[in-house]
Amino acid sequence: MLKIGLLGCGRIGQVHGRTIKRMEDARVVAVADAMEASATAMAAELGAEVRAVDAILQASDVDAVVIATPTDTHFDLIQSAAQAGKAIFCEKPIDMSVENIRVCLAVVEAAGVPFLTGFNRRFDTNFASLRARIASGAIGGVELVTITSRDPSPPPLSYIQRSGGLFRDMMIHDFDMARFLMGEEFVRLHAFGSSLVDPAIGQAGDVDTAAVILTTSSGRICQISNSRRAAYGYDQRIEVHGSDGMLRAENQLETTVELATAQGFSRSPAQHFFLERYEAAYAAVMRAFVEAANGTAPAVPGIHDGLQAQIMADAAARSLETGVPVDLPG
Amino acid sequence: MLKIGLLGCGRIGQVHGRTIKRMEDARVVAVADAMEASATAMAAELGAEVRAVDAILQASDVDAVVIATPTDTHFDLIQSAAQAGKAIFCEKPIDMSVENIRVCLAVVEAAGVPFLTGFNRRFDTNFASLRARIASGAIGGVELVTITSRDPSPPPLSYIQRSGGLFRDMMIHDFDMARFLMGEEFVRLHAFGSSLVDPAIGQAGDVDTAAVILTTSSGRICQISNSRRAAYGYDQRIEVHGSDGMLRAENQLETTVELATAQGFSRSPAQHFFLERYEAAYAAVMRAFVEAANGTAPAVPGIHDGLQAQIMADAAARSLETGVPVDLPG
Amino acid sequence: MLKIGLLGCGRIGQVHGRTIKRMEDARVVAVADAMEASATAMAAELGAEVRAVDAILQASDVDAVVIATPTDTHFDLIQSAAQAGKAIFCEKPIDMSVENIRVCLAVVEAAGVPFLTGFNRRFDTNFASLRARIASGAIGGVELVTITSRDPSPPPLSYIQRSGGLFRDMMIHDFDMARFLMGEEFVRLHAFGSSLVDPAIGQAGDVDTAAVILTTSSGRICQISNSRRAAYGYDQRIEVHGSDGMLRAENQLETTVELATAQGFSRSPAQHFFLERYEAAYAAVMRAFVEAANGTAPAVPGIHDGLQAQIMADAAARSLETGVPVDLPG
Amino acid sequence: MLKIGLLGCGRIGQVHGRTIKRMEDARVVAVADAMEASATAMAAELGAEVRAVDAILQASDVDAVVIATPTDTHFDLIQSAAQAGKAIFCEKPIDMSVENIRVCLAVVEAAGVPFLTGFNRRFDTNFASLRARIASGAIGGVELVTITSRDPSPPPLSYIQRSGGLFRDMMIHDFDMARFLMGEEFVRLHAFGSSLVDPAIGQAGDVDTAAVILTTSSGRICQISNSRRAAYGYDQRIEVHGSDGMLRAENQLETTVELATAQGFSRSPAQHFFLERYEAAYAAVMRAFVEAANGTAPAVPGIHDGLQAQIMADAAARSLETGVPVDLPG
Repeated sequence: MLKIGLLGCGRIGQVHGRTIKRMEDARVVAVADAMEASATAMAAELGAEVRAVDAILQASDVDAVVIATPTDTHFDLIQSAAQAGKAIFCEKPIDMSVENIRVCLAVVEAAGVPFLTGFNRRFDTNFASLRARIASGAIGGVELVTITSRDPSPPPLSYIQRSGGLFRDMMIHDFDMARFLMGEEFVRLHAFGSSLVDPAIGQAGDVDTAAVILTTSSGRICQISNSRRAAYGYDQRIEVHGSDGMLRAENQLETTVELATAQGFSRSPAQHFFLERYEAAYAAVMRAFVEAANGTAPAVPGIHDGLQAQIMADAAARSLETGVPVDLPG
Repeated sequence: MLKIGLLGCGRIGQVHGRTIKRMEDARVVAVADAMEASATAMAAELGAEVRAVDAILQASDVDAVVIATPTDTHFDLIQSAAQAGKAIFCEKPIDMSVENIRVCLAVVEAAGVPFLTGFNRRFDTNFASLRARIASGAIGGVELVTITSRDPSPPPLSYIQRSGGLFRDMMIHDFDMARFLMGEEFVRLHAFGSSLVDPAIGQAGDVDTAAVILTTSSGRICQISNSRRAAYGYDQRIEVHGSDGMLRAENQLETTVELATAQGFSRSPAQHFFLERYEAAYAAVMRAFVEAANGTAPAVPGIHDGLQAQIMADAAARSLETGVPVDLPG
Repeated sequence: MLKIGLLGCGRIGQVHGRTIKRMEDARVVAVADAMEASATAMAAELGAEVRAVDAILQASDVDAVVIATPTDTHFDLIQSAAQAGKAIFCEKPIDMSVENIRVCLAVVEAAGVPFLTGFNRRFDTNFASLRARIASGAIGGVELVTITSRDPSPPPLSYIQRSGGLFRDMMIHDFDMARFLMGEEFVRLHAFGSSLVDPAIGQAGDVDTAAVILTTSSGRICQISNSRRAAYGYDQRIEVHGSDGMLRAENQLETTVELATAQGFSRSPAQHFFLERYEAAYAAVMRAFVEAANGTAPAVPGIHDGLQAQIMADAAARSLETGVPVDLPG
Repeated sequence: MLKIGLLGCGRIGQVHGRTIKRMEDARVVAVADAMEASATAMAAELGAEVRAVDAILQASDVDAVVIATPTDTHFDLIQSAAQAGKAIFCEKPIDMSVENIRVCLAVVEAAGVPFLTGFNRRFDTNFASLRARIASGAIGGVELVTITSRDPSPPPLSYIQRSGGLFRDMMIHDFDMARFLMGEEFVRLHAFGSSLVDPAIGQAGDVDTAAVILTTSSGRICQISNSRRAAYGYDQRIEVHGSDGMLRAENQLETTVELATAQGFSRSPAQHFFLERYEAAYAAVMRAFVEAANGTAPAVPGIHDGLQAQIMADAAARSLETGVPVDLPG
């Protein structure tokens, strides 16, 4: 039985807590949150205790921590947890600063603790199946990856302002997915973006519509596009073109019902947003963490993967600013 | 160069005439129609002469005839054409009376002329492909065939009144398709029907919504359903379930465009009606006739197939009337 | 907090037990099973006690029972539970004998306890959405319902032998669905069936491939077809044709991934069988029961619905035997 | 009756000649080709005369010319034809040199003759419908256009070598489509490309896999990707994301047949290549030319559209070479 400390009881912390509650071989023994009411409610629901963060990090009855607190707290928490020998699950982004992530990486590696970065989309049934089929050779060599990601509607402006920008907040998932599927690191990146959805987003210094092209040293290409708006629901599609064929993962719709009228054949909208669309992926990534913490499976995606995605997000922001492509470090 | 006499220059006669005009190895040399203006216009368009029907049947420069006249003229035309040694293409239904068709069959067989019944759907790309894949063993043994056929809207009541009823006018195509796909004759049939689309159709003694179940001696089952109404266009679908899988042919839509909005994902309506949906099939069935007339391919579907479909339509009408299943002659 | 006694800890009993475990307002307090090991394991998992069936039925700390025992025990359990004033959830079929169900119905009505029949498919997201859209008038008046249900592979012969036959074991779900969607009772039924999948099923007196046509007094038609075999997974589709359009619910596939190669475009098989396909429906039907037991929602489908479906299954068996249609009681 | 001179009787010249043969209000009166046998055969098929190119350009019985000769002859032919007052249809690309096209444009405008550039894809039913729905406001303002174009297999190396390169030979269609759909001129372009399909293509100085990003001054974005290889047939898809929704045009498959087996649900490959896929579009673009020549419809896409696409292709080649974005002339 893996004993887990849950740091952060907000929306995502609750998702992780409930996932662990359904497991036979893990349980949350302690929770912490800056909001006392949140911590208390979560503790009651999970049959856990409310404790201070430091107490959890030092507790001898805690084997692993799930870090679901605001991003700016990750830096300290990761180091303390690693030094205390806890297995670590950390929500993305690990930190807004690539330098900070490098520091964490060094500490984690020195401590030798399992570390899993919360790129839950790798565990989505569709995307995982897509990658497994690439690996099995179903489409030969990968040549062109196209990733489409659109939110149903933009977040509040207050969120945008502290998000680090679209590339670090939203496209970072797609950067990780691009690496996951391409099987070769990218060497160059060019980003394009504009504010078409809401001028206030542009005034806040961010973009709401963006496209990035990535290339590898062997000449493979990845196209990513993002929008903060999609009338038809959360749009999450991937297409991989290879020498012997193509694989694509379509959206999950709300139902399989189709209506036929004089206007044509109409199916349901896409599942609304990430909590619905990636419900199973959230459960699967936590399952992977429990296994990594138990030492029965490798900790992938690791802190290195979180670092690479952040490097790419930084590069995209710089490319957008300068209007020219940016080389990625080898 | 096959020289063809076109008997009947109405809607379907025009389709056949234009198909032949595009061929390199066949041409319409003479046309006839009860409406002189129709014959004259068709002759001009095809570069053919207007002649009397009898003159065409006896002409030495006519190798083959395409019979696209009203059903009640088929009986005499077929016999005369066969006795004159012409290859014969005849639109379905061959005749409203099974006895008359048997008479024609005897005359045609005695004359030894090629005879092709205009069941054009056998030549539809989708259905022909479906059958070829059954024949190649893609789904193992056929167990259950489901045929759905719905017109976009009912024909005028005047047409209904002289049509012979839904089973002989509309479902007859599906009876032929059922035989085409099942690969085993049916031994029993039960028909159900009602007038849900327009009470006037019921008052005229016909039905506008119907379902039939057919069985073979080995226990295979076919379900056919028809409606004289479909808001979303001409609905023409087939599904064949076998021991190793299922094959289905879906509708052809007007375009491949899909619109995604808050209401969901919407595609185009089905192609409106038979002239659009079966445009290529009309060309293919006439191609098959030219080859049969030239002796380079067998004449299939033949007059026997037209007879079997009419027997099934009669049986369906009787089953509907009596409320019990009807045995089909062996 | 609704306190529930779980009678039967087999496959379906476990599904229901685990569903209740995730609820905030209900819990299983006691379980019973003829196999002591099953009862003990389930009790441990749910934090419940193992008790004798009679003890559960009489317990003052049990508000409701979930009956998931073999069918032949339902008759006694329902009556005892009703007389003890418990709310009752009973798996389908309620009983193999229509007469027995009538007895239960009388007892349940006399006792005035909520009774929910486990027709979980009514709670499937797709089918529930389909019905809601019919009710909203999306396709006008319903004219023709087509239900396709195919198992991935036949059950063991031993199961077939005690199942009551395909109509009572498998098609009973479709009979309930037909009533759910048509919105008008059926007055006549004709059943066709054969043994194409496995001759041993035929030798056991059952069929493995079947089609039924049902009609209402206003002339509406329903086609149901069943097969005990489908190479491509559990095939569960419904189509409803109406005066203004058509609604159809397609299969749920394992993933949304499509592979394109020289052979064409290939998607995943359908979800394998009922535990995967109806996972959410099982949760939803139990949710409906808890609400019915609490008196906050009507108990639908009720015992009357279970009775009607059984009457239809009996009629189908009789129709198949006699080869003629059977009138259904008004 | 529009009298047309057909210049060039190769593959595309034949397509245009046969299209005109089916028209009631236009006919080919004269044909020319550098290969005498080609000209003679085409003349016989169309009932036209073989004449010298100059004779056709000066003939008083020729109202319009269709230029389907090799690209390097277009420059002279266009000028001569314009000066002779003929309406002009010219296959793309108009010329490999933007300067030459500007010269032609000046001559054509001075002569005041109708000129239609053979961007047939604008006339494809799907893409034309897609654009009409954008124009009708179905998706609000256009924000992001994604165009995917993949050939089934690369052309012979000899063709590659004289083709002007992928951007001028293949992606030029997509540049025109991007302008057609975006409704705003592009101001900047960045091209990426590699040789992944065949190293010989790279050695010939060309790419076989490419992606381009285009932006407008208002910040709208277009992504185009091309590959010279697609195992599953000719891949021609377009997606347009707007403020109120998304429109996408999918591939046309060979049939509507779907096979379901243990491996899943499999549909036909895409139509093989451009002659099948754009058969109807070739007929429609020639119809548009006849109407433009008759003065009953505007000549769109005109020579200006051909010029713009060539400017974009040149810019793409330059961007690929330099590795940085290129500004497009206003």
